[in-house]
Amino acid sequence: MTAFDFDPPVSSVRDIVARALAEDVGLLGDLTSLAVIPVDANCRGRFVTRADGVLAGTAAATETFRQLDPTVEVVWLVVDGASIRAGDDLGTVSGPMRSILTGERTALNLLRHCSAIASLTNRFVLAAAGRTRILDTRKTTPGLRALEKAAVRAGGGSNHRESLSDAVLIKDNHLVACDLGEAIERARTRWPGRLVECECDTLDQVGAARAAGADRILVDNMSPEAVKEAIQLLEGAIPVEVSGNVSLETIGAYAAVEPDFVSVGAITYSAGHLDLALDFD
Amino acid sequence: MTAFDFDPPVSSVRDIVARALAEDVGLLGDLTSLAVIPVDANCRGRFVTRADGVLAGTAAATETFRQLDPTVEVVWLVVDGASIRAGDDLGTVSGPMRSILTGERTALNLLRHCSAIASLTNRFVLAAAGRTRILDTRKTTPGLRALEKAAVRAGGGSNHRESLSDAVLIKDNHLVACDLGEAIERARTRWPGRLVECECDTLDQVGAARAAGADRILVDNMSPEAVKEAIQLLEGAIPVEVSGNVSLETIGAYAAVEPDFVSVGAITYSAGHLDLALDFD
Amino acid sequence: MTAFDFDPPVSSVRDIVARALAEDVGLLGDLTSLAVIPVDANCRGRFVTRADGVLAGTAAATETFRQLDPTVEVVWLVVDGASIRAGDDLGTVSGPMRSILTGERTALNLLRHCSAIASLTNRFVLAAAGRTRILDTRKTTPGLRALEKAAVRAGGGSNHRESLSDAVLIKDNHLVACDLGEAIERARTRWPGRLVECECDTLDQVGAARAAGADRILVDNMSPEAVKEAIQLLEGAIPVEVSGNVSLETIGAYAAVEPDFVSVGAITYSAGHLDLALDFD
Amino acid sequence: MTAFDFDPPVSSVRDIVARALAEDVGLLGDLTSLAVIPVDANCRGRFVTRADGVLAGTAAATETFRQLDPTVEVVWLVVDGASIRAGDDLGTVSGPMRSILTGERTALNLLRHCSAIASLTNRFVLAAAGRTRILDTRKTTPGLRALEKAAVRAGGGSNHRESLSDAVLIKDNHLVACDLGEAIERARTRWPGRLVECECDTLDQVGAARAAGADRILVDNMSPEAVKEAIQLLEGAIPVEVSGNVSLETIGAYAAVEPDFVSVGAITYSAGHLDLALDFD
Amino acid sequence: MTAFDFDPPVSSVRDIVARALAEDVGLLGDLTSLAVIPVDANCRGRFVTRADGVLAGTAAATETFRQLDPTVEVVWLVVDGASIRAGDDLGTVSGPMRSILTGERTALNLLRHCSAIASLTNRFVLAAAGRTRILDTRKTTPGLRALEKAAVRAGGGSNHRESLSDAVLIKDNHLVACDLGEAIERARTRWPGRLVECECDTLDQVGAARAAGADRILVDNMSPEAVKEAIQLLEGAIPVEVSGNVSLETIGAYAAVEPDFVSVGAITYSAGHLDLALDFD
Amino acid sequence: MTAFDFDPPVSSVRDIVARALAEDVGLLGDLTSLAVIPVDANCRGRFVTRADGVLAGTAAATETFRQLDPTVEVVWLVVDGASIRAGDDLGTVSGPMRSILTGERTALNLLRHCSAIASLTNRFVLAAAGRTRILDTRKTTPGLRALEKAAVRAGGGSNHRESLSDAVLIKDNHLVACDLGEAIERARTRWPGRLVECECDTLDQVGAARAAGADRILVDNMSPEAVKEAIQLLEGAIPVEVSGNVSLETIGAYAAVEPDFVSVGAITYSAGHLDLALDFD
Repeated sequence: MTAFDFDPPVSSVRDIVARALAEDVGLLGDLTSLAVIPVDANCRGRFVTRADGVLAGTAAATETFRQLDPTVEVVWLVVDGASIRAGDDLGTVSGPMRSILTGERTALNLLRHCSAIASLTNRFVLAAAGRTRILDTRKTTPGLRALEKAAVRAGGGSNHRESLSDAVLIKDNHLVACDLGEAIERARTRWPGRLVECECDTLDQVGAARAAGADRILVDNMSPEAVKEAIQLLEGAIPVEVSGNVSLETIGAYAAVEPDFVSVGAITYSAGHLDLALDFD
Repeated sequence: MTAFDFDPPVSSVRDIVARALAEDVGLLGDLTSLAVIPVDANCRGRFVTRADGVLAGTAAATETFRQLDPTVEVVWLVVDGASIRAGDDLGTVSGPMRSILTGERTALNLLRHCSAIASLTNRFVLAAAGRTRILDTRKTTPGLRALEKAAVRAGGGSNHRESLSDAVLIKDNHLVACDLGEAIERARTRWPGRLVECECDTLDQVGAARAAGADRILVDNMSPEAVKEAIQLLEGAIPVEVSGNVSLETIGAYAAVEPDFVSVGAITYSAGHLDLALDFD
Repeated sequence: MTAFDFDPPVSSVRDIVARALAEDVGLLGDLTSLAVIPVDANCRGRFVTRADGVLAGTAAATETFRQLDPTVEVVWLVVDGASIRAGDDLGTVSGPMRSILTGERTALNLLRHCSAIASLTNRFVLAAAGRTRILDTRKTTPGLRALEKAAVRAGGGSNHRESLSDAVLIKDNHLVACDLGEAIERARTRWPGRLVECECDTLDQVGAARAAGADRILVDNMSPEAVKEAIQLLEGAIPVEVSGNVSLETIGAYAAVEPDFVSVGAITYSAGHLDLALDFD
Repeated sequence: MTAFDFDPPVSSVRDIVARALAEDVGLLGDLTSLAVIPVDANCRGRFVTRADGVLAGTAAATETFRQLDPTVEVVWLVVDGASIRAGDDLGTVSGPMRSILTGERTALNLLRHCSAIASLTNRFVLAAAGRTRILDTRKTTPGLRALEKAAVRAGGGSNHRESLSDAVLIKDNHLVACDLGEAIERARTRWPGRLVECECDTLDQVGAARAAGADRILVDNMSPEAVKEAIQLLEGAIPVEVSGNVSLETIGAYAAVEPDFVSVGAITYSAGHLDLALDFD
Repeated sequence: MTAFDFDPPVSSVRDIVARALAEDVGLLGDLTSLAVIPVDANCRGRFVTRADGVLAGTAAATETFRQLDPTVEVVWLVVDGASIRAGDDLGTVSGPMRSILTGERTALNLLRHCSAIASLTNRFVLAAAGRTRILDTRKTTPGLRALEKAAVRAGGGSNHRESLSDAVLIKDNHLVACDLGEAIERARTRWPGRLVECECDTLDQVGAARAAGADRILVDNMSPEAVKEAIQLLEGAIPVEVSGNVSLETIGAYAAVEPDFVSVGAITYSAGHLDLALDFD
Repeated sequence: MTAFDFDPPVSSVRDIVARALAEDVGLLGDLTSLAVIPVDANCRGRFVTRADGVLAGTAAATETFRQLDPTVEVVWLVVDGASIRAGDDLGTVSGPMRSILTGERTALNLLRHCSAIASLTNRFVLAAAGRTRILDTRKTTPGLRALEKAAVRAGGGSNHRESLSDAVLIKDNHLVACDLGEAIERARTRWPGRLVECECDTLDQVGAARAAGADRILVDNMSPEAVKEAIQLLEGAIPVEVSGNVSLETIGAYAAVEPDFVSVGAITYSAGHLDLALDFD
């Protein structure tokens, strides 16, 4: 098995883990382990889950121990993207006890954060019942986007824009010096071949955006009924993305009208931690 | 007003923002603004809150625009740590429109994340009604600890360990080669003057930890009643810290028995975003 | 005028210039200037061009002097993207002579490199006479992609993929485990909304790629005649991109058959330097 | 074989490759390979050359795959500095297909750029027929100097200044506050033991520079005849370096008068790419 | 043996060594070895000491060679913290000669610096004869604090503050807006659980600091007699730290009155180098 | 006055200071100032010296405050390289008190370290009485070489090699595969125009090195008498550098025989701190 079994780019994982360890280990080291644990003590910990969900972030957890001490061995029984049930064993970490205790918190912070995102994403995906696709947004944690977008994929969601460099998304705010038609024209001229999406707040705007040649419509803060009308209006000509504080309570109603996408910022910014732990034998 | 009005260390803010912008701007830039917004267009946005809470993260939001374009001016009407009510104006950002739209998401991601932590912390602090102090933990987002710990302070909480380098915290796992008394002895020998805290799961352990000379007791996953007993047992000799999945529902009961501290990992890892936005005139 | 008058993202410019200066100044500094130039000597240099072309890279040149010494003033008479003629004055740099001589080479290396790319791109653009659009590729200089892609835009070209993260491009090599149809299906499932382009070496493949649902066809190493047939075959259903060692000699023939795009790696990797210099009064 | 078989310093190679990969892989990863290539697919590619030249940059190409995936194996049949002929096999890369396809472009960009520099350098070296030595300049690509100067050596050229820290080179511009004699004196006083070279545009200046005690004369933009006179004037007392837009057409004429050195900025800045590729079995 | 046998945090060691090598190797490499030593030459060097002292810094020396060339093997006969005598063999380094000669100076600079700190610390520790504990200060070399504080521990000393983030230390300068009592109160309110130490120049201040509730008294620039009085005044209620240019000549007199701690900035900033070398067979 | 009044390269100063501040400020900030000093308190400190010596490091001290808080103003009364006497005022820092107290230690650590090097260098220079020149070595503190070499210059010394990239220095260890003559030949072939220095332990070697064409002789660990013989032997043909634990006690005797250079590692590695402080009004 190679580093590429894990989705997030290896150099992103490497950098994120290096910063996380520098931050948590400090300049002196793990005072407690250095004082109390013999240099030659070894141990074995089991990654376990105390909650149901979807696993993600194993590459980052593995990298944490690798950077601290290459002699630590991490073995996963479950891969990113797998459903896990409270009580499941997820994998093991074994080797020098000092290294393992020093890395425990950083590895868990990363694993719990990523798994929470994958799990919450998956709840949206399941609630959508295949009638729409769940997208993330750019509302990610600064510095962790590569990990978080990989976790969204592990949870069955898909990735919207990687960054501002990757597609055009025209909102009302952008129309200060030209109308929508000219804005789309400018975007196509400057960035040919890029997706040009237009945010619409009303059905009128939806019609205008279609007429102006948008590649995708983002209907923002509309009711499911309004979304349904927008979809009918568009007649399948271009895809529709629903956005605007969609929750687990409302995703079903939106999915029922079958937009192409529902983008949900909350899957990255409000996922919290999945209750995973490291149990020692 | 100087950079030191804002709590988090300026170099941490600088590094976090630089990484966040590199990540979100990408190699090409903000395609939409570059295509649609005239170079000489200016605008003014107001930071507003759509939810009640406590503000934090203004230094990072300001730094975001400063790094993109020093001609952008950011003015805050409210400072970190202030209570804010849905509908409040928080401040303004004005200057070249391209720069402001390019930085909007990054600034908001930082501001919403920090303010959510301050707000959730503050809810715990209010629920504790002055009978105990709320501490954070090391369960912070990798790479953002400096910002998050400052947000906890803005919310009225206090900071537990900065890193593994900063105090000794002995748990069961550490006692593989010696008993608690010897572990404390080793810690004092190696790290004189450092706080030595001991995690206890039972009253027996509490008594043993006191006898062994701990500086503070961390009672983990005990009921409020058991915590009360632990406090009585210790007779005020050393401070008591309660930990273990304390929630807004249970904090009141724990605070009622008046431990010195309650540490709550959730204030940093499960705060999500506070609903702040940038409204354009 | 703000930092955003210049296309490349400011943080990319900042990082590239910082590395370039560290590399060229070394640990001791500019031995010659430190020894020979009085601390209080000032001077004024004029950026001039000794060749015709298109200017690019001014943001990087300005940033070079700014990082060395904020008291140096750089004023441009011409902006990125403008046509320049041998003998033109492009701008001035004035201030402490030591700082200016120390930064001269780094600023010129950046400016000459970017302007060469803009100029060569522009020659392709002019030769295409509006019948097709010129795209760059991922054959950029490692570490300089943000600057080089901005220079391509300054020259009238457009940007193909920013990175591997940004669109799907299926080549023969990718079809080891599935046929093209399934490959496109997999790509759409995993990366919805992303452009899926397919490289084709034969007309048969072109037909197959269209049938399989590709968003764009990349015809590789075909003659203009074959490209013409491909275009006819596709009946305008999807755009066509020509690639494969297209040169200034052949671009006209390709443009004549009016493919949507011609991508030319050489505009970034073989541009060399445009002959710009800094003349002192 | 150790890392030191390859000329450029290992830490330069490591940093350059890390930046190149971060730039090309992006935050999501190689969309195409992740979607289409099975995790367990392996492949083997052969580095081949489609042009004659001199190989360089193998250390950087190897490092590219090593950083992506340590299980990829790279084997070279030819070493940096060897002459290669169109059609030659240069080496192989084998291992997980995803990793190899993800790294292909970055590895080739580095290898093609370095080999082009080595090859162009070598053409100058051959044209000089041993009658002079070919030097590079500080006109290198920002961020890549370590690789490019190693490529020059691979091509049979030699390195001029590493940076501004490494030798004194006095030009007309420097003589604002003192004459040449005093400038040399100041340089010797401040930087004893460093080479002091003086740029001369006329034979008068050559004589003056010699009289003033220069260690080496740089004759700038002189004809071969003038260079010959300069050499005669100096009577072998100090070495002569020719510079100023020397080309493959003119190098022979300059070499014929046997200056000690000819420095050619074009060998680094105008080399382009050598046509190397990775062919898959 | 694992990376954690060595005290300083591995990521600090990695970063410090990477910077040191970049600085010393430069952009061209070790000119001498590259020119003179055959690629396939191997050698074996012995680390030896020409002075008595205490060893420290082995992790950094090992890391130096590991970063240059993973095939180099470093074996230590003595561990950090061990007493060494002039003439002792400390360990060996073997492998490719070029790599070993290139890394020699950097490895020795680190090893000699750390060992000098450990050795000087140890002289203070021995002179204190167990009657007080020797602490370091924040007067460390910028960028090397993690290594230097580890070397202090290797020498038998202990670490005072890791950084400004780690304990409160109130000096006269801080009392601009409130008296000592209020300052301590503010510190406890803002940073609960942190050590609050007060610097005192007079016995009156010592009494006041105790009354105000300080956790530790730092008596600055007092004579041993005055320190003795301070200790008597405090009756063991809180620990006493002596500071202020304590030297090897005076440490005995201070230790004789048995303060809890003596902090000595000189152990880090004036240690110089211990005379260690690498001898080749 | 511009940044270039100060010798060390600005980007080196910037990087060194950024690392130093991150290290000393930590993740929470200056606990003491944040708790005790009002946000709006201002102060003014005077840099004073309590010892005689030579000032250096002012650029780094200024940069420290600039990075923390651009509103802090630093004014120097004395420049790097000036002789200072105990009691002298050196300059002032004024502005927000929190910022000044937070930066005080870092600024002083840098200033005291650099000034100590300048001062010790200057003692050697004075002891040499103009009969030889004092050189530094590569025995510098890892990460601080740019500052330390500038401090040597401020003290009246000169810089030997910047790094391994900058001159050839052949020692016995290098002669494993060829004799000295061939080694010099190889060095000249590979690195034309670079200084080739040969280390000699005996007069025989001195003669051999001259005969082999060395550019400079480094006589290592010879007595002043032997050095005198070496100089006579060389008849002024090439410069002589003395090295090998030369001290303030012995420098006079070596200078008396008038070698061209004496290199002294101790001026950088054993200088310690000069007793400078910041006094508040």
